[in-house]
Amino acid sequence: MELKTFLSRVESVNGKFIEAAQKRLDNLTKPQGSLGRLEEFARRLVSIAENTMPDLNKKVVFTFAGDHGVAEEGVSAFPKEVTPQMVLNFLRGGAGINVLARHAGAEVVVVDIGVDYDFGNTDGLISKKIMKGTKNIRRGPAMTRDEALKCIETGIELANEYARSGYKIFGTGDMGIANTTPSAAITSVLTGKPVEEITGRGTGINDSAWNNKVQVIKDAISVNKPNPSDPIDILSKIGGAEIGGIAGLVLGAAANRIPVVVDGFISTAGALIAYEIEPKTKDYMFAAHNSQEIGHKAILEKIGLRPILDLDLRLGEGTGSALAMLVIEAGLKIYKEMATFGEAGVAEKV
Amino acid sequence: MELKTFLSRVESVNGKFIEAAQKRLDNLTKPQGSLGRLEEFARRLVSIAENTMPDLNKKVVFTFAGDHGVAEEGVSAFPKEVTPQMVLNFLRGGAGINVLARHAGAEVVVVDIGVDYDFGNTDGLISKKIMKGTKNIRRGPAMTRDEALKCIETGIELANEYARSGYKIFGTGDMGIANTTPSAAITSVLTGKPVEEITGRGTGINDSAWNNKVQVIKDAISVNKPNPSDPIDILSKIGGAEIGGIAGLVLGAAANRIPVVVDGFISTAGALIAYEIEPKTKDYMFAAHNSQEIGHKAILEKIGLRPILDLDLRLGEGTGSALAMLVIEAGLKIYKEMATFGEAGVAEKV
Repeated sequence: MELKTFLSRVESVNGKFIEAAQKRLDNLTKPQGSLGRLEEFARRLVSIAENTMPDLNKKVVFTFAGDHGVAEEGVSAFPKEVTPQMVLNFLRGGAGINVLARHAGAEVVVVDIGVDYDFGNTDGLISKKIMKGTKNIRRGPAMTRDEALKCIETGIELANEYARSGYKIFGTGDMGIANTTPSAAITSVLTGKPVEEITGRGTGINDSAWNNKVQVIKDAISVNKPNPSDPIDILSKIGGAEIGGIAGLVLGAAANRIPVVVDGFISTAGALIAYEIEPKTKDYMFAAHNSQEIGHKAILEKIGLRPILDLDLRLGEGTGSALAMLVIEAGLKIYKEMATFGEAGVAEKV
Repeated sequence: MELKTFLSRVESVNGKFIEAAQKRLDNLTKPQGSLGRLEEFARRLVSIAENTMPDLNKKVVFTFAGDHGVAEEGVSAFPKEVTPQMVLNFLRGGAGINVLARHAGAEVVVVDIGVDYDFGNTDGLISKKIMKGTKNIRRGPAMTRDEALKCIETGIELANEYARSGYKIFGTGDMGIANTTPSAAITSVLTGKPVEEITGRGTGINDSAWNNKVQVIKDAISVNKPNPSDPIDILSKIGGAEIGGIAGLVLGAAANRIPVVVDGFISTAGALIAYEIEPKTKDYMFAAHNSQEIGHKAILEKIGLRPILDLDLRLGEGTGSALAMLVIEAGLKIYKEMATFGEAGVAEKV
């Protein structure tokens, strides 16, 4: 598959479907606009699906897992072994994403796109390993340009496959010890904000570890000199495998006219790579929540997305995506199930 | 039932249960605190129930309906007939609250506490009519003190009844054309804020109607001179039947150790009356969302509640409560269903 050819399939949504949805919303038994963003979600789902009665009966969250060579720089509060341990936890159903996806009626698809661990034949794991962890970005590029493209293609292929299987909404998720470090590096390069302003505490580091993390990110940028106008160069030099997979999933969702709920900081860094490759992808994105990771807001502003939830989450995995799916679905149900003024015999506004 | 005797049953929650819940939360396979407010909801549910493994398997939203004499002053965009019309819409399942309560797995209990319409024997309606609409508060008191007490008692009795029947979480809701007017009057008297700063557009009035509404509220306060230190005086002079019912439900929830999700502006005005009667009720309240009605924030600040959702809702009926229940329940499921570090074989923070 040639990426450029594939990207020509991504189109902006059609305003006529937004108008059609608005017309129905305005005729439901409520003051016009009184269900606020729930109405916005319904309009957007209709325009994405190009269907005035869409459904969300098959939902899936993709949790991409990858390791990061930069973990050896002491940027995370957790040891690197936690990445494969958490992958196994996902497969057994014991992690936060499993609980929240069950709550939302969504499946969880766990993708090994770059974990530094040999899982052998592990039931339920989607094995798409591009490399056994990225290289340490403080010393050189995370991966080759070819590997970066393969990560993106992996996400696209999964999107194509699940679209063909009838899934109606995707969520993104990530697992990878140290992955707020490449996410912050990407954020700084693409938003132009100083590293200090977009670097957070990740899984919970102290002040001295935070100072070190900031320096590591600065070094990674100055050593690699990623080209700010080439998102694939950025991904390969200072990114991560799971970030590339997420970028691909977002591109694939847009090409298949599937709404994609983007989780927190790492996922939104992936979505930003997708947006820089093809800005029309924005029409298909829903920002799940406002993360506690301070860099997240900078990316949301850059793309122009308003988060759905604001619950001080900072776990990743797709947890915010799963929960936000329930809120998005609430908007669709309002649109489809409420009575109109005529049906209910209710007087309209005077 | 003597109100004072009943109120002695309301106790603050026990901090030991919060600590016990925190201990479990800190042992789950995630960085400590990384599920933010979902963890807060779990802690609070445990402390309210005084049970380290509570459940929310029976949920109910109470939608209290009442009419308002002040509607004749042209303060609403909708005619007064809409109150009974919407009550019938609720009973047929076609309103926003029905859709969102189904989505949340909650029942809807529709209570006629003061609608100016004779429903006769209408299936499914809980008939607790205290009066056929309040009197016009611009001319004199909305109701007598005795009627105000009866409204509160109605809410308490419903809370007692549903607590006995095993319901684990309550939501509040309202229906009543013109009811943002008494809610704004209550807000101004109890927060001390100028009427202009806490008066909103309700169902969608234009500038001249808004100017008129502000004057009506000022007149209602100056004509009735409610005593700011007597919440029942305030309710009777410038309140409404559904606001009293909601206040009673909140008091009853607290006395029965049941969490109560308070919807938007009207519901929170009712919760504020309950809070002024007994501040310990705060421990049992969850603020569903941040309403578009500008006075709502003033009450939330007065009580000290942080809203769960921020979706630009301004419909009422209990719609925000129903949706917020799903988020609160997500917190409980995280707490109950996630694996611990030990169970999952995941390494802890270094």
